[in-house]
Amino acid sequence: MNYPKHLLQLIEALKQLPGVGNKTAERYAFHMMEWDSRRLEKTAELISEIPDKLKQCGNCGCLVDDERCAFCNSERKERGIMCVIASAKDVFAIEQTHQFQGVYQVLGSLISPLEGKGPDLLPMDKMKERIRALSINEVVIALDSTLEGDATSLYLKRELEPLQVEISRLALGLPMGSSLDYVDGGTLARAFSGRAAF
Amino acid sequence: MNYPKHLLQLIEALKQLPGVGNKTAERYAFHMMEWDSRRLEKTAELISEIPDKLKQCGNCGCLVDDERCAFCNSERKERGIMCVIASAKDVFAIEQTHQFQGVYQVLGSLISPLEGKGPDLLPMDKMKERIRALSINEVVIALDSTLEGDATSLYLKRELEPLQVEISRLALGLPMGSSLDYVDGGTLARAFSGRAAF
Repeated sequence: MNYPKHLLQLIEALKQLPGVGNKTAERYAFHMMEWDSRRLEKTAELISEIPDKLKQCGNCGCLVDDERCAFCNSERKERGIMCVIASAKDVFAIEQTHQFQGVYQVLGSLISPLEGKGPDLLPMDKMKERIRALSINEVVIALDSTLEGDATSLYLKRELEPLQVEISRLALGLPMGSSLDYVDGGTLARAFSGRAAF
Repeated sequence: MNYPKHLLQLIEALKQLPGVGNKTAERYAFHMMEWDSRRLEKTAELISEIPDKLKQCGNCGCLVDDERCAFCNSERKERGIMCVIASAKDVFAIEQTHQFQGVYQVLGSLISPLEGKGPDLLPMDKMKERIRALSINEVVIALDSTLEGDATSLYLKRELEPLQVEISRLALGLPMGSSLDYVDGGTLARAFSGRAAF
């Protein structure tokens, strides 16, 4: 005896979510069956409207609310500093630090030869044009400290050097609150080479 | 700086799923933003169609596929045995054991004074009518071994006794593969009192 077809399809759809396997998808599906039809309709609407409602800014690539990009205002543009991020969601983590007030540039993907993603996927023309138009004098690369992030950072550095901008990358070192016992060797080595006057 | 309104609403909707908090809902929402619109449409459709497509059998309360209840056929009805379960999803776990071939009766809820759920929520009239109509001679109570399951079982026993049916409940004891070291005292006590000839 098996589940009804509709239920199986729903479980398959929910399994596409990150970290959701069969058991969790089943649990979600059975839970949804207890929702009233208004909540189901609302949820379905929110999901199907994602492509319409969650658009990215044509300039920086950040998520746009009400057709207007909150990160492309003239105050931010005047600061002459640009932060390069991989995905639109990184903006929110960076904004919470209150350490950056310039403009953003979302890459959309990182260079990853293993996944067949080359540098051609990066919006280099757009980015260079913006750097010139906004008279950017510093580009902060805020990418993951992974193989893909490193490869992309090196590529950006090489591409942007002719533009005469300062290029920096987020500091590598000990995470706040960490104990030396539990920090991996690579991190410790980078923390040493990046040590600062105290 | 906050997320766009649509994203916040989507996160709120996903947080209604069991065990999903803010961080997980955010992760799901950002992941969904990478789905193509066809998959989003399909998922939304599957969710909004739940009330139409996943109906419960008017007799036993099990999930119905294609308007026909797979558990209300004449072969099962003739066996004279009924299994009482709390929710339609319990059927699938029981069917996998191949230990039961009779009809089901889904309660829909358990008695839980703390949640304000009284015995009036149980489909007692329907159930008594079916017991008489199908000449049921044994009712197997397959409810959770929790406070709510115990309370509901006792209530069912009292209500069904006048109908002259045998009433049984799933055995309580050691779970398969368990070690005595890790079994709680209550379970061990029930395993003792329910010990069987070997």
